[in-house]
Amino acid sequence: MASENRRPEMRKDSVNNRWVIFSPARARRPSDFKSKSNPNPNSQSECAFCLGHEHECAPEIFRVPLDSSSDWKVRVIQNLYPALSREIEPSLVENPNPSRGSGDVAICGFGFHDVVIESPVHSVHLLDLEPGEVGDVLMAYKKRIDQLRYIDSIKYVQVFKNHGASAGASMSHSHSQIMALPVVPPTVSARLDSTKEYFDQTGKCSLCEDQSKDLLIASSTHFISIVPFAATFPFEMWIIPLGHSSHFHEIDSEKAVDLGGLLKLMLRKMSLQLNNPPFNFMIHTSPLHGTPSQLPHAHWFLQIVPQLSGIGGFEMGTGCYINPVFPEDAAKVMREAFSI
Amino acid sequence: MASENRRPEMRKDSVNNRWVIFSPARARRPSDFKSKSNPNPNSQSECAFCLGHEHECAPEIFRVPLDSSSDWKVRVIQNLYPALSREIEPSLVENPNPSRGSGDVAICGFGFHDVVIESPVHSVHLLDLEPGEVGDVLMAYKKRIDQLRYIDSIKYVQVFKNHGASAGASMSHSHSQIMALPVVPPTVSARLDSTKEYFDQTGKCSLCEDQSKDLLIASSTHFISIVPFAATFPFEMWIIPLGHSSHFHEIDSEKAVDLGGLLKLMLRKMSLQLNNPPFNFMIHTSPLHGTPSQLPHAHWFLQIVPQLSGIGGFEMGTGCYINPVFPEDAAKVMREAFSI
Ligand SMILES: Nc1ncnc2c1ncn2[C@@H]1O[C@H](COP(=O)(O)OP(=O)(O)O[C@H]2O[C@H](CO)[C@@H](O)[C@H](O)[C@H]2O)[C@@H](O)[C@H]1O
Ligand SMILES: Nc1ncnc2c1ncn2[C@@H]1O[C@H](COP(=O)(O)OP(=O)(O)O[C@H]2O[C@H](CO)[C@@H](O)[C@H](O)[C@H]2O)[C@@H](O)[C@H]1O
Repeated sequence: MASENRRPEMRKDSVNNRWVIFSPARARRPSDFKSKSNPNPNSQSECAFCLGHEHECAPEIFRVPLDSSSDWKVRVIQNLYPALSREIEPSLVENPNPSRGSGDVAICGFGFHDVVIESPVHSVHLLDLEPGEVGDVLMAYKKRIDQLRYIDSIKYVQVFKNHGASAGASMSHSHSQIMALPVVPPTVSARLDSTKEYFDQTGKCSLCEDQSKDLLIASSTHFISIVPFAATFPFEMWIIPLGHSSHFHEIDSEKAVDLGGLLKLMLRKMSLQLNNPPFNFMIHTSPLHGTPSQLPHAHWFLQIVPQLSGIGGFEMGTGCYINPVFPEDAAKVMREAFSI
Repeated sequence: MASENRRPEMRKDSVNNRWVIFSPARARRPSDFKSKSNPNPNSQSECAFCLGHEHECAPEIFRVPLDSSSDWKVRVIQNLYPALSREIEPSLVENPNPSRGSGDVAICGFGFHDVVIESPVHSVHLLDLEPGEVGDVLMAYKKRIDQLRYIDSIKYVQVFKNHGASAGASMSHSHSQIMALPVVPPTVSARLDSTKEYFDQTGKCSLCEDQSKDLLIASSTHFISIVPFAATFPFEMWIIPLGHSSHFHEIDSEKAVDLGGLLKLMLRKMSLQLNNPPFNFMIHTSPLHGTPSQLPHAHWFLQIVPQLSGIGGFEMGTGCYINPVFPEDAAKVMREAFSI
């Protein structure tokens, strides 16, 4: 059955527990706005993140290899325009809005905001690196989280990547970011509530459960990649560790190289099948000082989201998303690229 | 104190109860992507929504005035590419993902998806209309909701507007949309939980409470407009009815004209101060078949969000937003336009 003729369906899964509307007919609607020409104009050939420009950056936290002078492969640096400040005391702002009741709360913006430069070369992107080099980037995330997670007032660490202007990137040189937050963010609490509910009902972790063959894209020794059953975005993909693991920072170097290979493959598939789209990826891990009872149902994963179409007032208003591509169809397209 | 030098702060209010990071330093970060030239290229001068092209549209539901032939002012029509279908039975899809456990749920995509054409003329936008004409559009929303709200399986009606391509619009002719959903969406449940918590603690409705003068923009006989204390987006604005009212569809024609005038003023202020940005607005109302106990703490409002900067992986991952503009500063800028 041609998927455009399928009837709309609403789905939710036990990880996000949030309705998504699947509506293939939406893909056919016309637009009288001209499409954006080149989404990623990149006139420069050098920038502050390039080899030799280290002095233009905010202070370095560490580099890989550790003792390298000019031949570094990865640098973890402070963000020059941090959203949160490592220099202020974490504390409540008293009576932030005096004319109002107790409902308005403010705290100082304490936290850490770092940038991970993934290559010294301006034009080299993550998918151009070897699996071992992608592994170096992943191990740099792990190492930085290992430094941050002992700070009492840090409750969660979000690792994310913006690639391309419409995915939010302001810098085109390949990089990702690490933000350490003084609160557990809403998406994380909601996910934990939802996987706990499933665990309480079934005794199982949602992400340890077998994945449907229809939704599978690829696998490596320690990881699989799928399109989730209730994917929020068209061609959204998840990479999930096969063994149960609550925190990304539990990864070791062997697994990092293995994940590096699968991540590279997924980025190459996406680039080939979707014409090199802007994208984001996010590592969904667990709160740092969680209770041991959270561990059996908390399973980290990496979410990749190509930016193919924006959202509108419906999604902003409701928190429900409309996805014109059924996950089974997306998985098939992704499976087919570079398959042997 | 110059606001760029203010320290970052995290805030939440009793309506959304979700942390937002305020970080003025972020506004200064450079970008090596060229800025989008004209965000709203609109080469056409006529389209299916124009007077005389009614036959190119999906079926009409009603027009204003009701008995007008060629001189209509507003048309409510079916969406030709609906996300939900009015033709299927609302029902559970059995065993949608057989190889998996009970966590994956699917229902048929039953619902209504309409378009409100706000003017017969291609180049006339909402802010060009007279207050009474904006009132006609608002009364058309009310009338359509009055038709939909007696359908048992419809749980919530979302009214929203996309203006400009980067706000998600695919059509440039001034219009808004109405979607009737078979579920209460997550944003709505979360807001109700949060206003209930405040009501239980204080005996008061969050939105009936006095607003801080610093955050006030303007007012009319029955409404005020503010920048919310924990605004998710820069220059986000809310229009709130002064008298307690849970459902938008309780509005009458006198109040609709009054709201029409204030909405027009807010759109003109936004256009002047922010250089005619793309924007969305959303009417946040209450579930249709809610319990009477929800009514004292559920207060509808209209949210206006100019699209000034996209989001990135941090917001997608965490559900936390970074806003570079403090609400007090945004309110001041908005107050100053057209003030006498
Ligand atoms: N010389 C230098 N030294 C050190 N750091 C430097 C630097 N020059 C620039 N930077 C930092 O490098 C980072 C580059 O990050 P990205 O390109 O991924 O997106 P950005 O954070 O700008 O915003 C996107 O991601 C965030 C978070 O998701 C969203 O809030 C936002 O809307 C979206 O555009 C910026 O945060 C910038 O502050
Ligand atoms: N001849 C005709 N007769 C009747 N209807 C017609 C028609 N021609 C077009 N339409 C409909 O008119 C609507 C115009 O809507 P908008 O321009 O506000 O945004 P759209 O819904 O396309 O998507 C934006 O809003 C939705 C909801 O927020 C997001 O999912 C999406 O990503 C974003 O781009 C479309 O829904 C289209 O289906």
